[in-house]
Amino acid sequence: MATIKDVAKAAGVSVATVSRVINKSPKASQASIDSVSKAMSDLGYRPNAAARALVSQSTNTMGVLVGDVSDPFFGTLVKAVDTIAHQNGKHLLVGNGYHSAEDERRAIELLINNRCDALVIHSKALSDQELIDFSKASKGMVLINRHVPELADRCVSLDNHKGAYLATEFLIRQGHSKIACITSSHEIEDVNARISGYRDALSAYNISLPESYIESGEPNSEGGETAMTHLLTKAVDITAVVAYNDYMAAGALSVLEENGIDAPSKISIVGFDDGFIARYVKPRLTTVRYPIQMMAEKAANLALELAKGEGIAEPEPMRYSPTMVKRDSVKNLND
Amino acid sequence: MATIKDVAKAAGVSVATVSRVINKSPKASQASIDSVSKAMSDLGYRPNAAARALVSQSTNTMGVLVGDVSDPFFGTLVKAVDTIAHQNGKHLLVGNGYHSAEDERRAIELLINNRCDALVIHSKALSDQELIDFSKASKGMVLINRHVPELADRCVSLDNHKGAYLATEFLIRQGHSKIACITSSHEIEDVNARISGYRDALSAYNISLPESYIESGEPNSEGGETAMTHLLTKAVDITAVVAYNDYMAAGALSVLEENGIDAPSKISIVGFDDGFIARYVKPRLTTVRYPIQMMAEKAANLALELAKGEGIAEPEPMRYSPTMVKRDSVKNLND
Repeated sequence: MATIKDVAKAAGVSVATVSRVINKSPKASQASIDSVSKAMSDLGYRPNAAARALVSQSTNTMGVLVGDVSDPFFGTLVKAVDTIAHQNGKHLLVGNGYHSAEDERRAIELLINNRCDALVIHSKALSDQELIDFSKASKGMVLINRHVPELADRCVSLDNHKGAYLATEFLIRQGHSKIACITSSHEIEDVNARISGYRDALSAYNISLPESYIESGEPNSEGGETAMTHLLTKAVDITAVVAYNDYMAAGALSVLEENGIDAPSKISIVGFDDGFIARYVKPRLTTVRYPIQMMAEKAANLALELAKGEGIAEPEPMRYSPTMVKRDSVKNLND
Repeated sequence: MATIKDVAKAAGVSVATVSRVINKSPKASQASIDSVSKAMSDLGYRPNAAARALVSQSTNTMGVLVGDVSDPFFGTLVKAVDTIAHQNGKHLLVGNGYHSAEDERRAIELLINNRCDALVIHSKALSDQELIDFSKASKGMVLINRHVPELADRCVSLDNHKGAYLATEFLIRQGHSKIACITSSHEIEDVNARISGYRDALSAYNISLPESYIESGEPNSEGGETAMTHLLTKAVDITAVVAYNDYMAAGALSVLEENGIDAPSKISIVGFDDGFIARYVKPRLTTVRYPIQMMAEKAANLALELAKGEGIAEPEPMRYSPTMVKRDSVKNLND
């Protein structure tokens, strides 16, 4: 690859002159600008952002860490952050953590070491303490979908317990009491919070169900198929299911269909997230809305404010509440 | 943010010693390693990747440009590239081009200027010449879903014409002749290639249809709804539709359902891509498979080989062929 020296030689000027042209110095003459621009183009030379970043101590880049960018939930998160970055003239660096501590750590280190001045981090595998340590190294770091008490003013999170509680209570009010729970096999706090929400709603209505009503799988459609198959195989007596997300609900629906069990007349189902898929499966999914776009925009704006070292003008609530979206996948047994 | 000088002062050593510890020099004593590590931790100091990249002229980062990472098609592309990057100990930088020349140019410049030594570029808005110019600046740059004759050995592409031809011919062989085409309103080569494929298949079977059989919209479900609504409003006499992608097909299906027109008994439909959605809409979509994961892995491996300056061991075909996936959205009129 061509160096700045090659450009200077081809343009017949000094390295300092090339540097002045690159940095748009008012001292650069039009003749220099022309000859250096031509030499850069001929040689395919591009000024090195790393060198410029070293001087400015900022790469004008913001970073985002998600679980897996190919999951549409995270795709929506990344797009929302990118939109805010764009509006602020920033580029976006994206890392995947795959809910693994090692991958999350590596990705956050890459983002911080590349001088991303604002960071939106979706970390599930790292400890609170490690995230607190990272936050010291990056004043513009905001956590999304995570609540660390010591970093409360830098956490944008969802009340997962409430989401599962709402879904379960919705089914109970429609006359259901034999309600299974299809959950994720990932060991993350969201899973525990949602199982607690399910259990607490049952308790609040004096419904007692055995552990066999809870089945888990990978948080995707295949995992939903596995969990629903297990419930059918164990012949668990159910009229309804609360699912960990819309993909697991979609997988469960396809197993029900294959087994000739009509939804919702025989088994009702409630999803979680209200992603694209919720509107396209049959029956259309009644689900819990996860306001991920709104939360990601909030987190991105907060990260940019913190990176600038500005005080937060108006502290806003950063613990978001899920809401119910009613479609066609739940039968009202009271009718 | 703490500097290397702050660390040296806190550790009671010279800046050169701090540098030796950071770069894991064998000359660093254990006492230096301990005191510097403690000072770095106390001060939240992280060695600057930009400075190290400047020395090594490589950031160990590979880059990928896609249209929009929140589109699951691109999510699959990014994940495939990330998987190969991971296997090769590289991190991934992701840019969104939104099919806009300005955004694509900005994103590619960011990736190249950040010394990404391997690049997988999905560019639709930039001219062949501009891409040729960029390729001179980055020897590890590979284009995906684009064919530039001058860069043939660095392009991994799909035969879009063949895909639309296959879909249209499949419908003709099932007895259809009144076949509408729902296409994308984006002005990209894929669109022209697929419309040509549709027209050429009709011509090959001596079917002549007016221009009113072609409708366009944004390449998503809303766009599919719009285009299908236009076809119904114009009262175009059709028994089948070839759609630009599975999302447009899903949108078209939802309009048919809302209007009480059964698919496939009244109108058959063929999608494109064979993404996740194709298996979850009702009826399950007969579609054209776009082998995007395979193509993205190929492009990523090729970019890494080129970046290393290695000759390509065994030149392979890089123009991929789509295939038909038969599910439930097409009625055979010959039965």
